[in-house]
Amino acid sequence: MNRTPWRPLAAIALALTLAWPVLSAPAPDLVVYGDYVLTMDPEQPEIPDGAVVVDKGVIVAVGPRPEIDRRYVAARSIDGAGRVLMPGLVNGHTHSAMTLFRGMVDDLDLMTWLNDYVFPMEGRFVDPAFIRAGSELACWEMIRGGTTTFVDMYFHPDEIAGVVQRCGLRAIIAAPHIDYPSPGFSGWDDSFAAAEDFVRRWQGREPRITPAFAPHAPYTVSPRHLRATVEKAQALGAPISMHLAEAPAESAYIAEHFDTTPVQHVAGLGMYRLPLIAAHMVQLDDRDIALTAAAGVGAVHNPTSNMKLGAGISPVPAMLAAGVKVGLGTDGAASNNDLDLWEEVRMAALLHKVDSGDPTALPAGQALAMATRLGAAAIHMEDSIGQLKVGMQADMIQLAVDKTRHQPIYDITSHLVYVLDSTDVVTTIVAGEVLMRDGTVLTIDEAALRKAVDGRRDEIRAVLGKKPEGE
Amino acid sequence: MNRTPWRPLAAIALALTLAWPVLSAPAPDLVVYGDYVLTMDPEQPEIPDGAVVVDKGVIVAVGPRPEIDRRYVAARSIDGAGRVLMPGLVNGHTHSAMTLFRGMVDDLDLMTWLNDYVFPMEGRFVDPAFIRAGSELACWEMIRGGTTTFVDMYFHPDEIAGVVQRCGLRAIIAAPHIDYPSPGFSGWDDSFAAAEDFVRRWQGREPRITPAFAPHAPYTVSPRHLRATVEKAQALGAPISMHLAEAPAESAYIAEHFDTTPVQHVAGLGMYRLPLIAAHMVQLDDRDIALTAAAGVGAVHNPTSNMKLGAGISPVPAMLAAGVKVGLGTDGAASNNDLDLWEEVRMAALLHKVDSGDPTALPAGQALAMATRLGAAAIHMEDSIGQLKVGMQADMIQLAVDKTRHQPIYDITSHLVYVLDSTDVVTTIVAGEVLMRDGTVLTIDEAALRKAVDGRRDEIRAVLGKKPEGE
Repeated sequence: MNRTPWRPLAAIALALTLAWPVLSAPAPDLVVYGDYVLTMDPEQPEIPDGAVVVDKGVIVAVGPRPEIDRRYVAARSIDGAGRVLMPGLVNGHTHSAMTLFRGMVDDLDLMTWLNDYVFPMEGRFVDPAFIRAGSELACWEMIRGGTTTFVDMYFHPDEIAGVVQRCGLRAIIAAPHIDYPSPGFSGWDDSFAAAEDFVRRWQGREPRITPAFAPHAPYTVSPRHLRATVEKAQALGAPISMHLAEAPAESAYIAEHFDTTPVQHVAGLGMYRLPLIAAHMVQLDDRDIALTAAAGVGAVHNPTSNMKLGAGISPVPAMLAAGVKVGLGTDGAASNNDLDLWEEVRMAALLHKVDSGDPTALPAGQALAMATRLGAAAIHMEDSIGQLKVGMQADMIQLAVDKTRHQPIYDITSHLVYVLDSTDVVTTIVAGEVLMRDGTVLTIDEAALRKAVDGRRDEIRAVLGKKPEGE
Repeated sequence: MNRTPWRPLAAIALALTLAWPVLSAPAPDLVVYGDYVLTMDPEQPEIPDGAVVVDKGVIVAVGPRPEIDRRYVAARSIDGAGRVLMPGLVNGHTHSAMTLFRGMVDDLDLMTWLNDYVFPMEGRFVDPAFIRAGSELACWEMIRGGTTTFVDMYFHPDEIAGVVQRCGLRAIIAAPHIDYPSPGFSGWDDSFAAAEDFVRRWQGREPRITPAFAPHAPYTVSPRHLRATVEKAQALGAPISMHLAEAPAESAYIAEHFDTTPVQHVAGLGMYRLPLIAAHMVQLDDRDIALTAAAGVGAVHNPTSNMKLGAGISPVPAMLAAGVKVGLGTDGAASNNDLDLWEEVRMAALLHKVDSGDPTALPAGQALAMATRLGAAAIHMEDSIGQLKVGMQADMIQLAVDKTRHQPIYDITSHLVYVLDSTDVVTTIVAGEVLMRDGTVLTIDEAALRKAVDGRRDEIRAVLGKKPEGE
């Protein structure tokens, strides 16, 4: 063999050449791996042994691990062995602070539940400190369970926004206004004025928070006031979130007073010209569905709440077939009794099969889309969240799929819907910020939260006249 | 003060007198505590800060902790801080080894699912080693999730019994017999003979195992063969477990061939004179319900499976009102896709509310009873399991209720149904034997199990022609 002195130099040059793509690569903030990467992007839905690269809160690359490792050396990385990496979930409808009323009373008829418990307890307890504790408990639970974006509708929205800002979640926070007295307000005028103030105060203030209007429902807000809401929301460019077509009693009321359906009633008032997020959408006829699809209104399906309150079964397969953007929501913890969106995914997949008698209805992939890509569309954020795709916000989660109760695995989408649950979520990231790592929520002081929650619980127990039941 | 020498002696005598109840108390095997003890015994349903004393596998005392501690000093104890103590759950219908087919295929119509996947895969893979791995995986999952008794119906029942014996669960193991060829059998004659042999082999052999007959269903076993089953079961004093009134196609078949309902068909053949465990019971008329109540036949409701396969909604509230003993089951993991009875409890509570439009239907306590006291009655074991009560078998579980996502707690029964889940179970005890402690299953070698499951999974994947998907 002809050994010459230039050989070592050539080897160094060759090594440098091979290493060049890595040495010259941009140094992004974070790379997250996954044995299975489920992007929810129809172009490349599943990447075995993949990775997502994040820089300045935005996804800059998605691909197979070897390719990503060749192109990028990130400042930080999160391992993906035995884990699924996917977009964070979108909870399209909740009342976060009601977690403090979780399981307060159950299994009552709707009017007894509302009039004898929920409304009096809200009147008695809802104040800024209650909202801070309740919303923080809700945010803790959502971060823990892999929800990265939620649509909230509850009192003292500034307090909710403060909690969201501190814990790092993404939210549309809708300020409620209603024709009747509510905590802090005598009726429409002051609640609507406060909502407008809230929207003005929070627009453009924090990229993860979108303030919105929340006229309660078509049977609690007059047509004149709904029109006023439309005008104001349009002028400010703010979305609207409202309860719509939830229960038979609502449909009966609207039919009696306005001789139409709830959907056609609010559409006639101009609400369907706006980025509307309609929660529940249970009592719908074919024309309601066609109108909703044509207007691009988002429909948020809350299966557990609808079941628990006996409201009915939303015609979700028909809405999906018509092209309606259908998302999923937990509703408040007082009627669920948790904020676990995985249960809603599974429930949606099962409920519409038995309702239609068709086991092919709402397959697993479609149910999962309702919590991610479609759910993002339902809240009018499809351009920024709901998929792992270059240019989208880095809102993503990892789930452990290596436990014995998960085995064997043949199809990861089926497992996500029918086997895995919120306790399997181990990592939660919003806009590139790691909010939970290895199952530990990083952005909320759990001990302080527990203390605040325990204090409120004791006050509520005293009023309920229940004997204390440990904690 | 008048000090006399007898004072110290008096003090010793007094101390001995006070300590006497403890010093003289029997020394039982085990005492288990709970911040909340939910006995499911209607006489004393809930004991805050309570304890259950176990000796020789049987419950010998149930009461408040101070009283129990005064009366007993047990050889071992399990702490109950932040925990619920309650009876173990009863899974009234499953096919344990089908866990190996978990998520193999989903969301297909029933006939495609059965004929193109389940039957061919069973024909190809079901052998004793498959049953050992699959049943052990099922038992691991049930111990992990707090199920202490299950009713199984699957091939190679001797293998299932061996697994159950080794892991310490309690089970009714029903040997399947059917008019058609099945794994290992050409048809009725050999499958029925094998079932009889199995029952004879296991009767009186192991206290935790009850062998039973399992004629598959009224549309797959002829009237003559059902009568033969009744005679044999009666002669041997063995229970029968069978699928009954599951789907519309079955009702149509029975109506066409026998001009009656599935329930009235099998009742007419004498099956309602026996301790029958009827799984599904979806397609029922009023007379079917009255007959079932009068006969004391157990009905096992499988809400998730019925929903996923689009079979229909069982008239559970009507059965309960008529006095039918209604239990809960998961069915096999191929149609669920897990063996988590907590999901069935929650699903039952929610499904019948939306089906009836009545939020007061099937309240939490009733749903929980279907998994415990009522579930035990549905499988004809109400005298030995399903309640924490003196004289009953010591089958019990502890759940951690001190996690942040559980807070606040106002009513523990509501929380067990609507908030807690199988991952909250920390202790599982059967007949006084601790099968799981602090979340670790003690009676199954998890690593060896995983190896066996992975091996079978790889073979099944190869046949499915799917690309390997990690773990």
